[in-house]
Amino acid sequence: MSNLVKEFNDYRQVMNEKLLNDDNKVIKRIFNLDTNAYMEGALNVKTKELLGLVASTVLRCDDCVKYHLETCYKEGITKAEMMEAMSIATLVGGTIVIPHLRRAYEFWEALEENK
Amino acid sequence: MSNLVKEFNDYRQVMNEKLLNDDNKVIKRIFNLDTNAYMEGALNVKTKELLGLVASTVLRCDDCVKYHLETCYKEGITKAEMMEAMSIATLVGGTIVIPHLRRAYEFWEALEENK
Amino acid sequence: MSNLVKEFNDYRQVMNEKLLNDDNKVIKRIFNLDTNAYMEGALNVKTKELLGLVASTVLRCDDCVKYHLETCYKEGITKAEMMEAMSIATLVGGTIVIPHLRRAYEFWEALEENK
Amino acid sequence: MSNLVKEFNDYRQVMNEKLLNDDNKVIKRIFNLDTNAYMEGALNVKTKELLGLVASTVLRCDDCVKYHLETCYKEGITKAEMMEAMSIATLVGGTIVIPHLRRAYEFWEALEENK
Amino acid sequence: MSNLVKEFNDYRQVMNEKLLNDDNKVIKRIFNLDTNAYMEGALNVKTKELLGLVASTVLRCDDCVKYHLETCYKEGITKAEMMEAMSIATLVGGTIVIPHLRRAYEFWEALEENK
Amino acid sequence: MSNLVKEFNDYRQVMNEKLLNDDNKVIKRIFNLDTNAYMEGALNVKTKELLGLVASTVLRCDDCVKYHLETCYKEGITKAEMMEAMSIATLVGGTIVIPHLRRAYEFWEALEENK
Repeated sequence: MSNLVKEFNDYRQVMNEKLLNDDNKVIKRIFNLDTNAYMEGALNVKTKELLGLVASTVLRCDDCVKYHLETCYKEGITKAEMMEAMSIATLVGGTIVIPHLRRAYEFWEALEENK
Repeated sequence: MSNLVKEFNDYRQVMNEKLLNDDNKVIKRIFNLDTNAYMEGALNVKTKELLGLVASTVLRCDDCVKYHLETCYKEGITKAEMMEAMSIATLVGGTIVIPHLRRAYEFWEALEENK
Repeated sequence: MSNLVKEFNDYRQVMNEKLLNDDNKVIKRIFNLDTNAYMEGALNVKTKELLGLVASTVLRCDDCVKYHLETCYKEGITKAEMMEAMSIATLVGGTIVIPHLRRAYEFWEALEENK
Repeated sequence: MSNLVKEFNDYRQVMNEKLLNDDNKVIKRIFNLDTNAYMEGALNVKTKELLGLVASTVLRCDDCVKYHLETCYKEGITKAEMMEAMSIATLVGGTIVIPHLRRAYEFWEALEENK
Repeated sequence: MSNLVKEFNDYRQVMNEKLLNDDNKVIKRIFNLDTNAYMEGALNVKTKELLGLVASTVLRCDDCVKYHLETCYKEGITKAEMMEAMSIATLVGGTIVIPHLRRAYEFWEALEENK
Repeated sequence: MSNLVKEFNDYRQVMNEKLLNDDNKVIKRIFNLDTNAYMEGALNVKTKELLGLVASTVLRCDDCVKYHLETCYKEGITKAEMMEAMSIATLVGGTIVIPHLRRAYEFWEALEENK
């Protein structure tokens, strides 16, 4: 199951490089902002990653959810913390979030297996 | 083509069990509410399933659409009734609903083949 | 409070006439389709109005909700039936639907007062 | 400007009471879940309120944003922390979030004035 | 009716200044990007403003629609061109776009009156 | 990689035929409108296809994006023009658009390879 993580990261990396080698400056700057926004500030990195995870989940973007699950995992966020964040996302976003929750749970298990 | 139905249900069942075996009470209660909300009440089950189908379609959640297509099918809703519900969803939700309509139609055919 | 209904309908009517007097054919045809889609067919008008109500609610369009609440009310749909449809919408669409539910409830009361 | 807070809370309270006095059990249970989900657990209340704020912001629900701004404010979250959460919401949700950010900032100022 | 334009711009300007005087750098940079993205490039300004208008409309953000209607108007885009762009938005986004179309049409008339 | 284009078009064509052979008139008329809306009018076809592309992208519908990328490509829109349109979509719709941008870029490369 750990291929789930590798496949996601490989495709993401290849395409991000292509996008960043393209001439479009607005895209480049959005990518750059995306890195800065999650850095330590008034809020710590863990909290920010949880905010990114919940935002991605209620907007139902599987790839964004996977990305933030991985960063959350690396930051040492526990499964119980992740699930509490996801439960708020599911309550706020409604039952249409559930299919994304299933895929998120599967991805988290893949992250644990990869360790 | 009938594998479409089986694959969907198998994955859904495995992951739902994992989610329900997890400790998170909010998630458990949302799942529980999801069962209760579609039970006979002031409105009958058929109407409620059609409401669930249309809500899922305008919010463009393929897995939710599949789930409600299957319950609609089991409740004896005809293809013409399903298509009228989907036509309202497509009108209200716009042409971005069309790709989901294509996949819904394919899934309905798979349900018919499985009979 | 009954002004709520009148104000909504007055503005809607004035602007719809302007839009239909404009030259754009695609807009005219979408308006025309909007009338046809809710007519008796494989599904009856009541069911279709409830479908329109739930679609409007999960997409969180207050004006669309008001429009369908009024047609539901005129079709003789009861408050309990309306509330069951809205409860499915709130479950599927999540707690962000609640502010729209408050305004919908207020509008339904205005419809009852207007009788 | 502090009326902004009072008006919001008054209308919200009146309508919530009506909704809870209505017979619909699914609605009642969603309201109940909404209270439980933000209680201290694996994550603390502050973090959960920030998650609710960001979820509400990317889904662009002004009333939900106001509600969470007020609870954040009462929990002692600083303006800088709130703005960092909102900056993540604006980045993830895009420039269409900006009008909601303007109204959120105005509401936060009203909360500060009310003190 | 021309107050519609003035009120929108006044509030927008006051709040944007407050947001830009706040310390948050991510917000500042998003505002900055928002200016750059619509400048002449491979596509001309008119086309870009129409793209911004349609994006705002299908995402149903009234304030964003107003902003782009005003810039479109200043760029000399005709009512027929604006309406064709809006008709595509209404078709793609569905009938839930119609209430926003009514308000957009009203705002365009206010822009014409202000001339 | 060019199979990406063929697979998309084949499935789309098969399912569209089934939908059009079905009895539902509302669906048929929406399909018909979808063809008319992008025809030369006050705006030229290129501009309209870019509007369709941006609308599809901010609403995050991969299949709609693919369809409009192909028509844009056939209309002679350059990669730089397409990327500028997509950069506006990413700015307006936020970073959750990025996964769709990656897939769009991959599809555009497949269109170029197919030539």
